[in-house]
Amino acid sequence: MKFIIQRDQLISSVQDVMKAISSRTVIPILTGIKIEAKKHGISLTGSDSDISIESYIPAEEDDVVNVEQIEEGSIVLQAKYFPDIVKKLPEKTVEIECDESLKVTIRSGKAEFNLNGQDAEEYPQLPKIQTDNSFEMPIDLLKSMIKQTVFAVSTMETRPILTGVNVNLTNNTLSLVATDSHRLASREVPISDTNIEFKNVVVPGKSLNELNKILDDAEEKVEISVTNNQILFRTKHLYFLSRLLDGNYPETSRLIPEQSKTKIQVKTKELLSTIDRASLLAREERNNVVRLTTQGDNLIEITSNSPEVGNVTEDITVHSIEGEELKISFSSKYMIDALKAIEYDEVIISFTGAMRPFIMRPVDDDSILQLILPVRTY
Amino acid sequence: MKFIIQRDQLISSVQDVMKAISSRTVIPILTGIKIEAKKHGISLTGSDSDISIESYIPAEEDDVVNVEQIEEGSIVLQAKYFPDIVKKLPEKTVEIECDESLKVTIRSGKAEFNLNGQDAEEYPQLPKIQTDNSFEMPIDLLKSMIKQTVFAVSTMETRPILTGVNVNLTNNTLSLVATDSHRLASREVPISDTNIEFKNVVVPGKSLNELNKILDDAEEKVEISVTNNQILFRTKHLYFLSRLLDGNYPETSRLIPEQSKTKIQVKTKELLSTIDRASLLAREERNNVVRLTTQGDNLIEITSNSPEVGNVTEDITVHSIEGEELKISFSSKYMIDALKAIEYDEVIISFTGAMRPFIMRPVDDDSILQLILPVRTY
Repeated sequence: MKFIIQRDQLISSVQDVMKAISSRTVIPILTGIKIEAKKHGISLTGSDSDISIESYIPAEEDDVVNVEQIEEGSIVLQAKYFPDIVKKLPEKTVEIECDESLKVTIRSGKAEFNLNGQDAEEYPQLPKIQTDNSFEMPIDLLKSMIKQTVFAVSTMETRPILTGVNVNLTNNTLSLVATDSHRLASREVPISDTNIEFKNVVVPGKSLNELNKILDDAEEKVEISVTNNQILFRTKHLYFLSRLLDGNYPETSRLIPEQSKTKIQVKTKELLSTIDRASLLAREERNNVVRLTTQGDNLIEITSNSPEVGNVTEDITVHSIEGEELKISFSSKYMIDALKAIEYDEVIISFTGAMRPFIMRPVDDDSILQLILPVRTY
Repeated sequence: MKFIIQRDQLISSVQDVMKAISSRTVIPILTGIKIEAKKHGISLTGSDSDISIESYIPAEEDDVVNVEQIEEGSIVLQAKYFPDIVKKLPEKTVEIECDESLKVTIRSGKAEFNLNGQDAEEYPQLPKIQTDNSFEMPIDLLKSMIKQTVFAVSTMETRPILTGVNVNLTNNTLSLVATDSHRLASREVPISDTNIEFKNVVVPGKSLNELNKILDDAEEKVEISVTNNQILFRTKHLYFLSRLLDGNYPETSRLIPEQSKTKIQVKTKELLSTIDRASLLAREERNNVVRLTTQGDNLIEITSNSPEVGNVTEDITVHSIEGEELKISFSSKYMIDALKAIEYDEVIISFTGAMRPFIMRPVDDDSILQLILPVRTY
């Protein structure tokens, strides 16, 4: 194997596949990066067996030459050293060469590294996924769906299924739902041009977080395919494979109250920064609880009290308050996470009493829903 | 106590005094920030009893009003909450008011925090230092002296005196020396307009690191005063007091070889980045050892070998090599630290054999000296 590659391209591909590599893997060869040179380009692969990422650098693209003098072959290099070496090489191009005894030479300018490689034959094959059974969507839309839901997954391993995001595609509607049983985040978008349907697909939250980091906004579309136990996200340069979680995701639709007793419409950012301030004193307490109290027709009061430290009070003038008066306490952290996911200037919060879950949606957009269980404080 | 203050000014003063505050202090009131309002301005104080920092905000300066409606008084507020509160307040100005029962109210826009303060009378008095026995120097010069020496202090408590920087002022020359017994860094500058002399003043490395972070390049001069057990650095807005280390600093001048057998003149950055690359494979080994070998009259080779991982070789064309041929091994970390402190384009390295300490100085500047003990590798 041999090739000369643009260093910047190599750095960014290495960074992408590193997202899948864990130093704590039980399969030793997975601590390495697999490099494969083929006639038309170079592939890098990283995997921790839950997530596998392949990044492809075409030899030539849009009349720019990325890779030259390719001699086909493959090798696995230690992920502990290779990324830093590539980052610190002196010149814009890097020559990588590997002989039959798995010795790898990396040259750039006057610097020459000789590394011990591992046989690429020993690297596990990524499962081949049927990609004819797939649908496409814009990358920026998928990223925003992930951002609006994944924070609500459970971090506790007591109910493993809740550490994933429930992904469903039915009636040309793609929905993502996450809940840790104290709050729930959901987002729906229409997907046209597909006949595919699937249900109870649960993708680990960690996989979606890593995917979100490496999906490149500069690319337009991502192709998604689902099998029994894997989900594949594919773009022109990226092949991102994640295992699915086993088990049945709980039915969440019945948690969402259909009626409300109090409705508040308020500027999202104003409420967010007020709750953020109120949470400063609450952070010692369990769940960082703050309290919301309606005051007449267009004023709410946010308070927090931490006996040893002090208390904080702030009024917000809101667009409208409809229905019953209300005093309710909730976790400021959950509220801040949810308001950040709203992404619209104004939010409508619908309450059904101080002891029932309440929901938040942007004004004029039903596709985003955030639900929070209140905290009993008396 | 009451005043209304520009929030930006308050934030930057709070950040400065926070550098002295430790949550692990044995004196409970030192976990707080002392706020003192006087007719002409506000002082904030933080201390961990080793370092004390006072930041002063004048009510009016250069025709800008920083503080208004001052009613004199003082209070101590928990450093755990106060900085975040100030940072997140909604408006450009902040009103701080304190009643006789030590209740503090912080108002900004519609936000109101009520905090429990502590009696400022219980806060330890900073020692008053005789400032007529002081000398002045430019701030940027002091900062560069600290940067060029402080990294070489020992981090081991086995010889506590070596965790400090030895500061001497004799014959109108200020010198800073630091050594951990494996390397030594020293810098001298002339100080005119003073008759003061002192010796064996040892300032904790930690104090100088914190001082370096908060000294403001926008101010011009710093005034330095030394007593038996304290050193004071004073600018218009800052009062930075550090205790000195007890004990005698070792005589270091005899460590510095006076003759050399091999002299190499080389571009500082080129050598630095080459050694940085060579150290990538060496990091597993003790001390990150790399080897330098002269090759004829104007080439040196930097190599590193880590049997399990591989090896690296890089040649550098140098300005000149005088004297004997040389093969020498040393810690790449020490070398990188020293070269960063050189601050000149070209460096002269003087060796007296593979087993003796070697020294580095910038070309045409004797005021900076870096010394490193080589590593025996055979």
